[in-house]
Amino acid sequence: MEFPSKLIENAVGELAKLPGIGKKTALRLALHLLKAETETTSNLAEALAKMRFDITYCQTCHNISDTEQCSICANKLRDHATICVVSDIRDVIAIENTGQYQGTYHVLGGVISPIEGIGPGDLHIDTLLERVTAPGSEVQEVILAISPTMEGDTTAFYLSRKLRDQEGVNISTIARGIPVGGELEYADEITLGRSIVERQRQAR
Amino acid sequence: MEFPSKLIENAVGELAKLPGIGKKTALRLALHLLKAETETTSNLAEALAKMRFDITYCQTCHNISDTEQCSICANKLRDHATICVVSDIRDVIAIENTGQYQGTYHVLGGVISPIEGIGPGDLHIDTLLERVTAPGSEVQEVILAISPTMEGDTTAFYLSRKLRDQEGVNISTIARGIPVGGELEYADEITLGRSIVERQRQAR
Repeated sequence: MEFPSKLIENAVGELAKLPGIGKKTALRLALHLLKAETETTSNLAEALAKMRFDITYCQTCHNISDTEQCSICANKLRDHATICVVSDIRDVIAIENTGQYQGTYHVLGGVISPIEGIGPGDLHIDTLLERVTAPGSEVQEVILAISPTMEGDTTAFYLSRKLRDQEGVNISTIARGIPVGGELEYADEITLGRSIVERQRQAR
Repeated sequence: MEFPSKLIENAVGELAKLPGIGKKTALRLALHLLKAETETTSNLAEALAKMRFDITYCQTCHNISDTEQCSICANKLRDHATICVVSDIRDVIAIENTGQYQGTYHVLGGVISPIEGIGPGDLHIDTLLERVTAPGSEVQEVILAISPTMEGDTTAFYLSRKLRDQEGVNISTIARGIPVGGELEYADEITLGRSIVERQRQAR
């Protein structure tokens, strides 16, 4: 694609580096910004730069935070005896949006992936073990809420091996089964199989 | 959606103002930038701001340009007797990419749309008429390459009315018909009908 201007070519090139955005979409976005008020662009550029350079992470759970401790870790009303281990900040947001969880989190920052060269040392696993094993730790349950992919399962397995000798700490995983509103006939065999094996007795 | 940080909330908010980007995609983009090198973000923010604030438009054809005259208008090798009228800069890029056109362009900057309150006065129509009617003008053909929507057809009709009394200037529109590689049975009736009425005799 040839561009009539170096400026637009640069902007399109940078936009197209974003995931899921190709050259055509990038051009559409650039032309949209050109048509819109100049403030739209300056606000966007400023917000992005500010986010990237000023962002800090919670020292306890590695969640994104504007302060040294994130609002969840700093909240005394939350259940600090329960840690929900997730791979990504997006998962924290997703679980928070359910409104069903009152404990704290621990963000690993990825999953173990030998293909991508990510080992346990590249993830925030040490700090998790520290939180659980530290003398006087009040942790009673670690929930492994990691996506059930090959890498996710490997990570969960690794974590449960590391944690299982810790007395007084239960390890659990999020329930697998048929999604609410999901049709039985379209569920894959493994999910359907697990949902039958791990069936739940209804209260009378 | 609740965000753990004001900084990320702002960035997501600004990204989600872009066309075709919702809150979820915006969050994915923001988290991608957070994971990537800081340079990725600073380059992007800089390129966008630079494009928006430093961009200039060609004084002749209103195409985007880094100089007073765009590279097409300034190119003596191109056919300055032919002007291709398009609504948008994207159309210039699309036609240039075909490599089939050697004339110049005129970018209207939109189409006449009473619903959106865009009249002929809001488009670069005056300068087009000037280019065609100026004494000593070498223009011999004006190609109306405007998308065949309701608004586009209105704009093309308006332009042809304005231009038809200009002696020595032919007005043409781009050919309508079945796209190359397109299946007859899936073409809409109007396109198929026009492709039959305006059938082209093959050279023997």
